[in-house]
Parts: sequence; structure tokens; C-alpha cells
Amino acid sequence: MRGAVLYAPGDVRVEEREDPRIVEPTDAIIRLSATCVCGSDLWPYRGIEAVDGPSPMGHEYAGIVEEVGSEVTTIRPGQFVVGSFFASDNTCEICQAGYQSSCVQRVGMGTEGAQAERLRVPLADGTLVATPDIPADDLVPSFLAASDVLGTGWFGAVAAEAGPGKTVAVVGDGAVGLLGVLAAKQLGAERIIAMSRHEPRQRLAHEYGATDIVEERGDAGVAKIKELTGGLGAHSVIEAVGTQESMMQAIRSTRPGGHVGYVGVAHGVELPGEELFFSHVHLHGGPAPVRRFLPELIDLIWNRQIDPGKVFDLTLPLEQAAESYQAMDQRQAIKVLLHP
Amino acid sequence: MRGAVLYAPGDVRVEEREDPRIVEPTDAIIRLSATCVCGSDLWPYRGIEAVDGPSPMGHEYAGIVEEVGSEVTTIRPGQFVVGSFFASDNTCEICQAGYQSSCVQRVGMGTEGAQAERLRVPLADGTLVATPDIPADDLVPSFLAASDVLGTGWFGAVAAEAGPGKTVAVVGDGAVGLLGVLAAKQLGAERIIAMSRHEPRQRLAHEYGATDIVEERGDAGVAKIKELTGGLGAHSVIEAVGTQESMMQAIRSTRPGGHVGYVGVAHGVELPGEELFFSHVHLHGGPAPVRRFLPELIDLIWNRQIDPGKVFDLTLPLEQAAESYQAMDQRQAIKVLLHP
Repeated sequence: MRGAVLYAPGDVRVEEREDPRIVEPTDAIIRLSATCVCGSDLWPYRGIEAVDGPSPMGHEYAGIVEEVGSEVTTIRPGQFVVGSFFASDNTCEICQAGYQSSCVQRVGMGTEGAQAERLRVPLADGTLVATPDIPADDLVPSFLAASDVLGTGWFGAVAAEAGPGKTVAVVGDGAVGLLGVLAAKQLGAERIIAMSRHEPRQRLAHEYGATDIVEERGDAGVAKIKELTGGLGAHSVIEAVGTQESMMQAIRSTRPGGHVGYVGVAHGVELPGEELFFSHVHLHGGPAPVRRFLPELIDLIWNRQIDPGKVFDLTLPLEQAAESYQAMDQRQAIKVLLHP
Repeated sequence: MRGAVLYAPGDVRVEEREDPRIVEPTDAIIRLSATCVCGSDLWPYRGIEAVDGPSPMGHEYAGIVEEVGSEVTTIRPGQFVVGSFFASDNTCEICQAGYQSSCVQRVGMGTEGAQAERLRVPLADGTLVATPDIPADDLVPSFLAASDVLGTGWFGAVAAEAGPGKTVAVVGDGAVGLLGVLAAKQLGAERIIAMSRHEPRQRLAHEYGATDIVEERGDAGVAKIKELTGGLGAHSVIEAVGTQESMMQAIRSTRPGGHVGYVGVAHGVELPGEELFFSHVHLHGGPAPVRRFLPELIDLIWNRQIDPGKVFDLTLPLEQAAESYQAMDQRQAIKVLLHP
């Protein structure tokens, strides 16, 4: 089969890869209907995260089940399924508490390489959620978004305790930040402030429910959020970048007793303990337990109540994976969908 | 009046200080029934926190109201009252959300110097809570404890979401840690692991409800907590020290999705963002909003349901404040009560 492989920073190639096959009796093989490039794929692409030899890329997927292992009982060939970037048993104590991305048996999907025609999914019963039926083509991008960016933005909003009566600020205008806006809206937030200086992203933020846009960043951004919230700061702040600046911007934009939900994969972040102590914020986040939210998200998409697929503003054939990385790296696209 | 003043690291003197008087119409003057030395007083005493000239010391207090300003309406002369280390209006949005120690009008009580015969308390209506009547002498130490260490341990337990069915670990066996144990017990925790290597403190921890004692620290302590919790870590961890080691011990002892409540005043702490991200813990803490809990704590003490006053294992006259700092610095006493 064809699949994308990262050889070195900036060097993504689509080449012949071995077809995946059932390894464990709990595996499933799916034929991908669509796949995509994640903001977190840009870390190794940019050389910020080390790459140890040629690496299959991609961890976002939705598609049709082709084959299942002998111990798979709930997932069946022919179903359209959505999974997420960590395979999980969904039965251990950690999964049952809603933290499937820290499942005691978790398997990172990155190494399997979802930017390809087919994918092996371990722990299929615990990982995959089937849609009610084969979805219409126009819904596929939204289901693909549920696999990571929607689930991650949603977790950010839940971790930030976005809800009725709350003012929510969102740091980061990538796909996750924009879908954090959508999630905050769905969760009933009263006011949603998107921090963005890019006009097309501001437009999508508005469409997803943002009531205010703040273009300033860093200290100026914090001052603006304070100004918009009677000097106190937002009740809830979603952090969707993962840098030192964005984390501090998020913490400082939050009022005492408020909640920071941080879902940008942290890179080189060091939090000053004393400032954090006196900030009085709640801090929660990490790799989103997308599996927790999948049934609800699939339902919302199936019933066309949300349209997270709009974050894909460029669609390319899988063969052009290299161009898709380039477009996202240079912020020419919010997120690129790849057709295998 | 007489009061304790820190001149330099290790140099505490009790000397004549000016009598406090009503400055603002919202002030009250109280005659202290008892006062004490806080673990956080040891930071400047040890020279870890800079002291800028001779500083009145102390921020824990309970006593009889002598005089109130013209705008004080709920607090009356003759009442026995308990306050805490931040004066607060208890009416602003932050106070109403339960974060009185971040009140928009907050006044730190440290500069007033509660290790003295009398004390000016700003924002008296918002800060002070009166007991139902003048308490029996043997209850005074417990009411004094409510002023800081009990309220702080309680906030640590609440921030760590201690409760029924939970395993709670407590890092730190000072008065706050021990009262964190008491709080976890009161909040219904199923299992409480006190981390302590000091026999008298272990004994008090047991008395307050600890079910297990772990003597190991650092990585070995973390390993022991994991061993006691099926490899997962505790649901809730109270951090009551404030050093890099204790914070990391707390975070690493918590299971994914669990809660760290940190109340040890952070000194020189830098939290590694990437480890925190993948730990999946909830982090909350800071200066305890003791005022939030005072009505409930006063009730529990008045009805003799809890005995937090036991953390005072040494009582001295105020004149011997220097000896009391020494005893706590050298860990010869858990906490020293001073009689003005």
C-alpha cells in the first residue's frame, strides 16, 4: 500500500509500505476513507522533535473495517469507524475514569502511520466507535476531525470547564483552537474570545461561536482579556499551542479560581511554581482522551448539529502528502485532508 | 503592646510595638487569645525569603473584638472571632466564587503582625467569622488552627478532590499536611496515605485518620504509592511543602485523571511542562481561601467533632517567640502556640 514516511525534517515521502495485517487477536484493519496532517506532526517535520530513522506518519483516521482479529466482538467488517491517536482497552480503571489516552494498555497510533491506505488498529473493541450507518461523503471530513482535533478541542473546553455563564478565551487559532471554540459554544459558554490575527481563522472562529476576537498576543493579549472581563480574567481558558508563551498567556488570562484546559502538546515549557501558586488557577490537560467523547461527537456530527470538517480548508490526494505538510507549516492551510 | 519582629534571618525579637488603631472605617481591633508561628514564617527566618528591614511577624489569629470602625455592621465588640491570613471583602466576584485569598481588595495580614497582643483586621465584616459564643479555653488552639493550617490543609484536600472511594496521599508532615489528613478523613476518603518519617507526626497522622504511612521520599516514595495503588497512583494527592522535590513527588504519585492539591508555598519550583502534560493530572492550589471554609470549620470545632488544635505540641508565652521559631526550625515542635 501507499503511505507517508518522514525521512528527516522537511522530507516527507509517499512510498510503498507493507500492508498492515492482524498481529494481535484484538486488532482490526481498516481502509481509510480519509486521513490528515496534525499540528503535532509539524514538530518532527520542523526538526523540533527528533526523528529516529524513516517514520510512518499520521494518527488521525476514519474508515471502513476490512478485517478483525478473532477476539474482536463489537466491531465488524463493513462498519464505518472512528478511532483516535491512542488505542485503549476502554475497560481498565483509568479508561473507566475517562482517561483512555492514559489507558494501562495504551498503544500510540503514530507508529502505525495513519497517512496511508490502510491501518492496523490495536484493541479494536476499546478504540473504535462505529457510526450508525455508512455516512454520506460530505460527513467524512467531520468524522475524521472527531478522531483528533475535535476531540482535543473538546477536551480542552471540558478541562477548562467551559459552560453556561462562563467567559471562555481560546489561545491558538489552529484547528484545535477553532474546534475549542466550537466545543465551548456547544457546552453553553456565554462569551467566547478567540485569540487570532489571521482573518480566515477569525471568520471560522466567528462561525463556530466566537463572540470576540483578540489579535494581541503575550502580555498585550492578557491585558486585552482582562479589559474584556472587568479586570478579572476569563473563567475558562483553552490553551491549544504548547509553547512557553502560549501557556503563560493562558494562565495569566485566567481569573483566580478559573480553569486552564491545555491541549497543545507542551514543548520546552517550564511553569514558574510561585506564579502558578499565586495565580489560583486550575490546570488540567494533556493528550485528549478522545475516546471518552467519541459517542457524543459522532452523534452530533451524524445529526448535522456541528460541522467540524470545515477546519479542512485544503484537500489533496495522499500522494501529495509532502505539499500538505508544506502548506500547514507555512500556515497556508489550517488543516489538510488527504484522500488515500 | 508587645509583638514579635524579625530583624534578620534567625533574629526574632519581642519588643514594644505601637498599639494598632482603627485606620479605615471597615477595620476591627482584636485582642488575641492566642497566636502562633507558621511553617511559611520559616522561609524568611531561614533567609530563603528576603526580609526588608525589621518586620512584624505572624498572620494567624483568634481573639476577642475590642473595637470596630464606623462601617462595620456584622462584627461586634465582645465577640470571639477567627480570621485568616488575607483580609477580604467577601462580596467581590472572586470572593463569591470562593477565592477570598485572591479578593480584589485583599490585604495580606503578614504586615500587620499577628504575633502580638492586639491586631488590626481590615475589612472586618468580610474577613472575620464569630463563634456562637465565647469558647471554652481548651477550644482556643483549634480555633487558632482554623485561621491558617486547618483551612490550608482543608483547601489542599478539597483541591485534591478527596472524597468517598478515593485514595488520598499527603506529601508533607507539618501541621498543614497533618490537617490535610484530617480534612481528607472528614471529606470521606477511603484510604489516606501519610508520607512521614517522624514517629510523633506519624502517630498524629494515624489519629487524624491516616490508614497507611509511607516513610520513603522522592522516587522511592512515588514507587511506594504506586505499589499501594495497584500501580496507578493515588486519586488525590495533597502537597504541603512547596519545594521542587515535593511538587514532583506529588505529581508523580497521582494517577492519570487524578488531582493534586498544592498548598505548600512554592519556593524555587519549576514544573516541566512536557511531564505535566503527559501526567494527565489536575493541578490546583495556592494560598488557601480559608474564609470559604471558616463557617464549616468553626462549626466542627465548636461541636468537638474535630480537634485540629493537637498540632500545637508546644505552648510558650509570646515573650519567647524566638525559642518558638527555633523549635519549629529544628523540627523539635510541629507547631508552637504563643500566649500573648
